Amino acid sequence: MTDDRIAALEARLRILEDEREIARLMASYGPLVDAGAPEVAELWLEDGVYDVDEVYLSGREQVAAMVASEPHQSWIRGGCAHVVGPPHVTVDGDEAVAVCHSLMVVRADGGFVVRRATANHWALRRTPDGWRVTTRTNRILDGRPESPALLAAGVRGEPAPG
Amino acid sequence: MTDDRIAALEARLRILEDEREIARLMASYGPLVDAGAPEVAELWLEDGVYDVDEVYLSGREQVAAMVASEPHQSWIRGGCAHVVGPPHVTVDGDEAVAVCHSLMVVRADGGFVVRRATANHWALRRTPDGWRVTTRTNRILDGRPESPALLAAGVRGEPAPG
Amino acid sequence: MTDDRIAALEARLRILEDEREIARLMASYGPLVDAGAPEVAELWLEDGVYDVDEVYLSGREQVAAMVASEPHQSWIRGGCAHVVGPPHVTVDGDEAVAVCHSLMVVRADGGFVVRRATANHWALRRTPDGWRVTTRTNRILDGRPESPALLAAGVRGEPAPG
Repeated sequence: MTDDRIAALEARLRILEDEREIARLMASYGPLVDAGAPEVAELWLEDGVYDVDEVYLSGREQVAAMVASEPHQSWIRGGCAHVVGPPHVTVDGDEAVAVCHSLMVVRADGGFVVRRATANHWALRRTPDGWRVTTRTNRILDGRPESPALLAAGVRGEPAPG
Repeated sequence: MTDDRIAALEARLRILEDEREIARLMASYGPLVDAGAPEVAELWLEDGVYDVDEVYLSGREQVAAMVASEPHQSWIRGGCAHVVGPPHVTVDGDEAVAVCHSLMVVRADGGFVVRRATANHWALRRTPDGWRVTTRTNRILDGRPESPALLAAGVRGEPAPG
Repeated sequence: MTDDRIAALEARLRILEDEREIARLMASYGPLVDAGAPEVAELWLEDGVYDVDEVYLSGREQVAAMVASEPHQSWIRGGCAHVVGPPHVTVDGDEAVAVCHSLMVVRADGGFVVRRATANHWALRRTPDGWRVTTRTNRILDGRPESPALLAAGVRGEPAPG
């Protein structure tokens, strides 16, 4: 009886811990990428994918190269905030799906403008080192039908369509 | 002694689980509404209310009709992000109050603009199927005094004023 | 054995509770400050610091005076949302560091504009009354190098540089 109650607590706590770790990973992306920090790439699996509209980054090396690239560094120098919204996370064993919005806000005209509003779908996997991104799929919310489809799949805990 | 420690853990975990479930519900609203998904209405109680400035939606059917309506579908086709901010949740037994900001960001002029910045007050109830919204009250932050009053009531765990 | 399992649960739960309390404190800032509510000052230690670019507020009294000031009240009357993004929290015993973005969104031209996008670094301490802010450091993301440095330090759980 006592053992059963403890085992139930352990299982319930495990769910909260998994979601907390994934939310924490997601909350680190914006600050790290706006800092140009190399840790960005470590959020992904070694062969993880970051698929953003026209850009398809495959593997940590390509993610790290994007962060270090002149175009990205130039956004930082100009003033830039990648605001990643609150996550909705669905864990299923050692796999998880998360969804959120993100806003890319940049300095312009003495204030700031929203350059991109984006649907974010995250597929994640549990590894011995913790949760890592297998594929993050971002699509701009400009009316293209993939973006709403990505949001719906994300809340339903389903893989990114297509 | 062991029983007391386990009971204390169960009670503490219950608080985190309740807040987690409410935060997860709130984080699903934006992605679902920008996807035009029918699940939006299911976040409310059958007779729940969504009270947004000039629009007063009473019951799941009216919420579902708003999502399916031509004006809302037209926002989605034009490009639209309902970004719901991080929640502050106060649970009191089987009732809860949550508060957050939301931004409605829409495609315009080759970029995006913030069409509305809004105070969100959520009243929720525990049901056999989980937490559901009894009344969500949104007021635009354009200087009207209801909006700051709504935010203050939300953080204090009080009902929406008026 | 049972005692060990219970002690492990207690320790794991404590981490989640600490992070939850800090996230909840941070999520209350925006709604409270946009409400002009006196509770804003109570988020800080009695001698806590709020260091925002040109403004350096030292102690609860100065934070409270900022909230009550004519310039701040005038933002509220004009229409204003301080949107504080999802937090990344690192707890180390009785001290913690958190990081997030914030957006100051204000009413203008019949819509809203993003007046400031800001890097937020929070240093917090556990007190008998719960977690409180020792120093919150905000720097605008306009290209000045302090702002990315603040974000990186925040994710790494390090103190604000300089």
